[in-house]
Formats: sequence, structure tokens, C-alpha cells
Amino acid sequence: MQIAMVQDKIVPVEQLDPAYFDRGLYFGDGVYEVLRSYNGKIFGLDEHIERLANSLAAIEITGIDVKEIRGRVQEAFDTAKVPNVKIYFHVTRGSALRSHGWDNSLKPNFFMLISDLEEDPELKAKGVAVSVYPDIRWKRCDIKSLNLLPNVLAQQDATRKGCFEAIFLNDAGFITEGSSSAFFQIFGRTVHTTPLSKSILPSITRKFVLKAAANVGLEIVEKSIMPNQLKAVDELLLGTTTKDVIPVVEFDGQTIRDGRPGKYTKQLIEEFRLFTV
Amino acid sequence: MQIAMVQDKIVPVEQLDPAYFDRGLYFGDGVYEVLRSYNGKIFGLDEHIERLANSLAAIEITGIDVKEIRGRVQEAFDTAKVPNVKIYFHVTRGSALRSHGWDNSLKPNFFMLISDLEEDPELKAKGVAVSVYPDIRWKRCDIKSLNLLPNVLAQQDATRKGCFEAIFLNDAGFITEGSSSAFFQIFGRTVHTTPLSKSILPSITRKFVLKAAANVGLEIVEKSIMPNQLKAVDELLLGTTTKDVIPVVEFDGQTIRDGRPGKYTKQLIEEFRLFTV
Repeated sequence: MQIAMVQDKIVPVEQLDPAYFDRGLYFGDGVYEVLRSYNGKIFGLDEHIERLANSLAAIEITGIDVKEIRGRVQEAFDTAKVPNVKIYFHVTRGSALRSHGWDNSLKPNFFMLISDLEEDPELKAKGVAVSVYPDIRWKRCDIKSLNLLPNVLAQQDATRKGCFEAIFLNDAGFITEGSSSAFFQIFGRTVHTTPLSKSILPSITRKFVLKAAANVGLEIVEKSIMPNQLKAVDELLLGTTTKDVIPVVEFDGQTIRDGRPGKYTKQLIEEFRLFTV
Repeated sequence: MQIAMVQDKIVPVEQLDPAYFDRGLYFGDGVYEVLRSYNGKIFGLDEHIERLANSLAAIEITGIDVKEIRGRVQEAFDTAKVPNVKIYFHVTRGSALRSHGWDNSLKPNFFMLISDLEEDPELKAKGVAVSVYPDIRWKRCDIKSLNLLPNVLAQQDATRKGCFEAIFLNDAGFITEGSSSAFFQIFGRTVHTTPLSKSILPSITRKFVLKAAANVGLEIVEKSIMPNQLKAVDELLLGTTTKDVIPVVEFDGQTIRDGRPGKYTKQLIEEFRLFTV
């Protein structure tokens, strides 16, 4: 005997889409990627597929071939025939009756949505404000999983404060990363960012920002800092797939320098652009 | 422009069930409850609805009335006409295009599945083995959210080790709770269990087990302990909604006393049964 109810209606279980039994929904038992294209070319596809493979392996989702996923992404993108798109996809462990443990014979579910990318040149021209939020996430933030409730709560808190993004602070008071972005601090000619570990996502944009920084001759220091060290900071910036480099001109209510995007940030934006053409 | 792909097929977006756009799937942005009935009566319905209200408030899901949900649960249960069932339901923030922040006008999604409850008298008669797993969960385990990937990984690890359940150990080495159960230790005539905080779920079964313990004249100490303190333990037990009290006879490979359910555990099973008639 099984009785299902969707909203306020009793529905025959056999009429329900398999999506209602997705372990992604019951447990967040899945991983995802977000990519974008620039002028008709998907950016960092190999890097994203490599990270996907790592995420899948970390939570032991098998039975799906990342090369095949790569093909699906390319196929759907080619079908879209739009030069600048956002590509979201996830892979979950599959659909089954709810039970914490899983059966290795489960067939993973794949879902992808490609949509127009809205460019907002103001963000790069004027920069954004960021707020802070306690890093209440789990201890495997290196896995790009569907367990994103803390990120959602952090983003909503930022929005409420009139900010573009929330920066997570861990229990010891150190900056980890943004709720959906990497975060960089420039002191003089040195770019600081949190070192890779289980506490942050191995951001693809982070990798390219650091490459851009090296290209323009900046020093790179991978070390976590505390907000009070930002009194001496010259520039701040975010890195995120859909918008690459975004200048940050206000941190937790404090204006950074003259409140305008810094000169190295502008150089990084230009240098990043070269990767995308 | 939007292109969706489900498995390896491109699908018109407008043909997709709203479940594909559920924030529960993208972010685990929702909360849930599991209840059971005994002999035609739902157990602890008020307590579960009260906890649901707390979970909804904690993540600011509004626009759904818990009294109405209570009515839906009762209605579907009455329709089932089966005396012993398991009732699962979740409430998510709603369906929308994927974006971390939310719009307060979103209509929450409700999904419920009622199914036959399989009783397994062997569990109570023989007891179970439990393993240990690092508590890598987020810092708001008091919210019964859909972010359950660490619980899933812990349960699978337990199953692999031939165990019934995984007991979480936090960074400081203390026992928090089971991956989907409350955990109790009996020393002499004293029942120990982890105190309520943001680190554990306010388990309904925990509440009734402690009530049963008081009824049979046991002392109650709400204090976290470490596995090495279990050398002196007399009895161990789990509390979980679908199976109430389950004796634990092996912890992380070590047999407890004579490897059989303890006398107070048996008393607690009997005392709990009185709550359910």
C-alpha cells in the first residue's frame, strides 16, 4: 500500500514523475556544475567535467560516464545556438523509495538547463558590496553537492542587507569563501585567497583568476585572513563562473579605499577576458 | 531561450513537471518529517507538527499553514485504512528557476508518501550493531532539513560494515547522535544522552524514551560522552520514529556486556509500548 499526496491532492503513486522519488530531492544526494559560454564557446568545460568526476567519486555515484555528460553538455549547447549562455546540470544518485542507504544498481539521474546569460556591465564598472555570514556548512565543501541550504540562507541574508554576495566566516573568524563565489584580497601587489582544502570549493574561476594574477605579475599568497586585516586591503574581488571577475567595493558595511574598483582588479578583468576569446 | 535535458533527451521546458524546478532538489531548501502509526493511530502527531513549524521558521519558509498540513496527514492516513504505516512528508520553498536567493511570493511544495510499515521483531529481540562516522554535518542539525548527504554517507558506511546504524562523532571526539536516530547509554541506573543543541535533532522518540526512562525510575543525564567511556557501559539503545526503541549490542566492533539486549532496555521497550496503545 502506498498513498502519495502532492500539495493537497492524493495522487496515484504510479502517476508521479520519477522526479518525485529523486534522492536529490530527499537527501541532496547529488552533485552539480554551472558553466557559461562566451561568444559561442563553453568556458572551462574540461575543468568542470574534471571537478564533476571528483565530486561523483567523493560521494560514490557510479554508473554514469563523465565523457557522456560532456557530450550531452556540448550537444545541448550546440542545439541552443546562443553565444552567451548559462549551463546548469546535476547528477543525482537516482530515483528510489526513500531510504538513507543506497543500492549500487540505481541509475543516476541527469538534469540540465541551459538559459540565456544576462550580462550586467554595471557590476564590473561599479563593483558590489558584500556582507558576512557564519560558515555553518558541512565539512566537505570541496564536494559540489546539492546540500546548499546554508548557501541559500547566506545569500538571502546578503540580499536583505542590500549586498550582492555573502562571505563566509568560519568559527575561528577566518574568511573561507563566498556563498557562491571565490573571494580575493589584494594588498599592494599581492593577491590573497583561501587555500584549497575540504573547507572550500575548488573553484574553476579561482584557478583562472590566479592564472590571470600571475600573468599580470602579481604575487599570490594562499592563506586565510580575518576581516580585521581588511583595514589594510587595497582591493577586493569575487570570482564566479557566470560573471568571472567582480570588483568588491564594500565589505560588511566598510567602504574599501575610494569605493571604486581597483586598478589591479581592472587588469584582472582584462586578463581574464583574454582567456575567453 | 531555455533548453532542458533529462537523462540524454532534450525536453521542452514547458513539458517538465514542476518537480524539476523544486528548490528542494537544487538546494535541499526544505524540511521534512517522518511519522508512524500504531494500530490505527498516528503517534506523536502534535509533536511532529510542532517540530515542523520550528524547522519551517528556522529557514523562513512561510506561506504554508502547519494546521493544514496536519489535516492533510490525517486525511491521507484515514484514506490508507492501514493500521501500521510510515508517513514521510516534506515541505520545500517552492519551484522556481534556480537562484540561491528566494522570492517571498513563492508557493511552498508539499509532498507526502504513506506506506506499509514493515515490523522486524528480530531487531528488538536480538539488538543491532552500530559503527561510528565523523560528524561532518552542518552546524544546524536541529533543523530537520533536506540537506542529508552526510547522513546518507554515514548510513552507507554502516551498512558496508554490517551495521544497522552509524553513530556520529564530532571533531572533539564526542558522540552526537545516530545518522537517523537518537542514541542512549545506560550506566547502572542512569540513562545518558546528548543534550539538545544546534548539533543534534530534537528527536521526538528521544523525548518519549526519556519519559519512559523517568517512568521506570531511571536517572537521566543529558551529557555527551566519548566512545572510550563505553568500556563501562551496561546497555546501549537507539530511538527512531519508525522502530521506537532498538537495543544496541555492539559498538564499533566491541560487544556490549553479554551481547544481548539489556534489562532496562527491555523495560524501556515495554514502557514505550504503553505510549502507543
